[in-house]
Amino acid sequence: MFENRVRRVSELMRRTDLPAVIVSDPESVFYLTGRWIHPGERMLALLLTDDASATLIANRLFAQTPEEGLPLVEYDDTEDCVDVLARALPEGIGVLGVDKSWPSQFLIRLMQKKPEVRMVLGSYAVDETRMCKDEDELRAMRLSSRMNDDVLRELLTTLKEGDTELQVAARYTQIARAHGAAGNSFSPLICFGANCAEPHHSSDDTPLKAGDCVICDVGLDLNSAMSDMTRTVFFGEPTEEMKKVYDVVRRANAAGKAAVKPGVPLRDVDRAARSVIEEAGYGPYFTHRTGHNIGIGVHEPPDVSATSEAVAREGMIFSIEPGIYLPGKFGVRIEDLVAVTKDGCEVLNHLEIPVY
Amino acid sequence: MFENRVRRVSELMRRTDLPAVIVSDPESVFYLTGRWIHPGERMLALLLTDDASATLIANRLFAQTPEEGLPLVEYDDTEDCVDVLARALPEGIGVLGVDKSWPSQFLIRLMQKKPEVRMVLGSYAVDETRMCKDEDELRAMRLSSRMNDDVLRELLTTLKEGDTELQVAARYTQIARAHGAAGNSFSPLICFGANCAEPHHSSDDTPLKAGDCVICDVGLDLNSAMSDMTRTVFFGEPTEEMKKVYDVVRRANAAGKAAVKPGVPLRDVDRAARSVIEEAGYGPYFTHRTGHNIGIGVHEPPDVSATSEAVAREGMIFSIEPGIYLPGKFGVRIEDLVAVTKDGCEVLNHLEIPVY
Repeated sequence: MFENRVRRVSELMRRTDLPAVIVSDPESVFYLTGRWIHPGERMLALLLTDDASATLIANRLFAQTPEEGLPLVEYDDTEDCVDVLARALPEGIGVLGVDKSWPSQFLIRLMQKKPEVRMVLGSYAVDETRMCKDEDELRAMRLSSRMNDDVLRELLTTLKEGDTELQVAARYTQIARAHGAAGNSFSPLICFGANCAEPHHSSDDTPLKAGDCVICDVGLDLNSAMSDMTRTVFFGEPTEEMKKVYDVVRRANAAGKAAVKPGVPLRDVDRAARSVIEEAGYGPYFTHRTGHNIGIGVHEPPDVSATSEAVAREGMIFSIEPGIYLPGKFGVRIEDLVAVTKDGCEVLNHLEIPVY
Repeated sequence: MFENRVRRVSELMRRTDLPAVIVSDPESVFYLTGRWIHPGERMLALLLTDDASATLIANRLFAQTPEEGLPLVEYDDTEDCVDVLARALPEGIGVLGVDKSWPSQFLIRLMQKKPEVRMVLGSYAVDETRMCKDEDELRAMRLSSRMNDDVLRELLTTLKEGDTELQVAARYTQIARAHGAAGNSFSPLICFGANCAEPHHSSDDTPLKAGDCVICDVGLDLNSAMSDMTRTVFFGEPTEEMKKVYDVVRRANAAGKAAVKPGVPLRDVDRAARSVIEEAGYGPYFTHRTGHNIGIGVHEPPDVSATSEAVAREGMIFSIEPGIYLPGKFGVRIEDLVAVTKDGCEVLNHLEIPVY
């Protein structure tokens, strides 16, 4: 499986004249080697060349078990890791791709040591390969989203007045663990009342009270497949304005999903969802992109946004998550994951809930 | 307080001919503005110039409340953030410092947009200022370490046969919360038995059994001051070899602390601790650096290692954490935080425990 993935990446490298690339994102290293290494502030580099050879360069702390077929260059805390990497580069290369998330401290020092090598963004080779999920990944993503549906359904039955956002968030985690999740895919975001109007609020000690709007943006990690879903519910009777806003967001979510099929630019998917909100007069209150790709990582490129230059391809999995945020009042967001199929999309979330 | 810190950084920039620097590390942005912004994969840049002016460039999602005296340039997901940043740069600068952790995707794109500007590592200006803690920070670090002592003392009274590493780790978090901590400074690392021989083991479902060596490497976040301490204990009667190794590590820890005073190179502190272990014949089994600085961040530069070029200065706070790891058998690590004083150091951890 991993050799296959390395081969797909190197084919893309050859097509784009990229002789070598440094992969440093732990998710991409996992994708290509099956090994999770979290290097902290230390340097991690998987050096791929366009002949499908891969070499892992890692601190001795993380790299103790050599893998069959994966050459390993170890360094320890007494060595200069950038020197070790510079020596491992293929001789005579003129251009080297680097990972988009590689910390500048390594890039700038490598540029100083190798002034003759032109450094370019190289993660596209891995990112584009990761973008289109294979059957194994698609199956894992279905199971993870299915479990996320079940966990949120169970969580919603437990809401009671006085619960704090943090308590409900912790309860999500507990229920997810009980269902067999390895962990969360991100910290569960539970918002009550006016906190729902801040799209990036952090859950705090705000208590739940009657009439509150409730946003649950939650996901779990099952076999390194991340799920991500948002549901908005009302605790008690919603106002007419809440109902109106909810219906606009629900229609925007549906319009986004309906726009998905291979060949459609992702900015058109964003446009489809955004238009519904703009036409209802809430355009200025939808302040973020419509979605993002997802898989081993909870936020993978490309975005589903107005500036996205990507096009939907079979096997992509991304979120459709329009929202309307009325400062000081409330907010509504509805998010589903979709997998692009041959002629449309498969929605991975199935949680239908009576909202009001 | 924050203006003062910006002024200290800009003085260092002037002394080193760095006209402008991009600060992107959320901890440094907090240090200089008092605001925590966690941008995820989005771009965050605090642009400092050598005349002590600061401009925050952040996605609209995170930057909604303008701060008095802190100019704000917002962008949203429909804009090219690197364009926005390039326009905000001072005109005519020839060199720009960038944060060591800034993702390469922003640096490489900025280099393409501004080929006339030479990019250099610039975080030293903030890092060196952060290195020497002021009285407020020192007080906060004392309180955080004192609470860490109390929490670990309480945790150790709860150990019982059959407890798993993950259960004990969760219990640490719970007790820390009950004592008033905002959270952990890192995931508590609890190791039993042979797992102690892997310095970067992740706590798992291994159960505690009689005769086990137990490593607790734990820390908490109190008012954005991070603590970090390791204690090794034995659950039941240790073997003679365990006692011997423990005593070597205890002496190495003491020798490291005794070596600390202003003007001493940090590599000499590493040497002082490492020599004790080497002289006892365990040199190859001490596989990591002796320590790291700490404060708002749990791992701050510089390292206390054989390759460190830094010198101890009054106000620095770092860990002294020698260890010996015998693969397949057990391991011992003892870690304290120390603050460099005028003529030596103040040890911030006071937890003494009967070990065997």
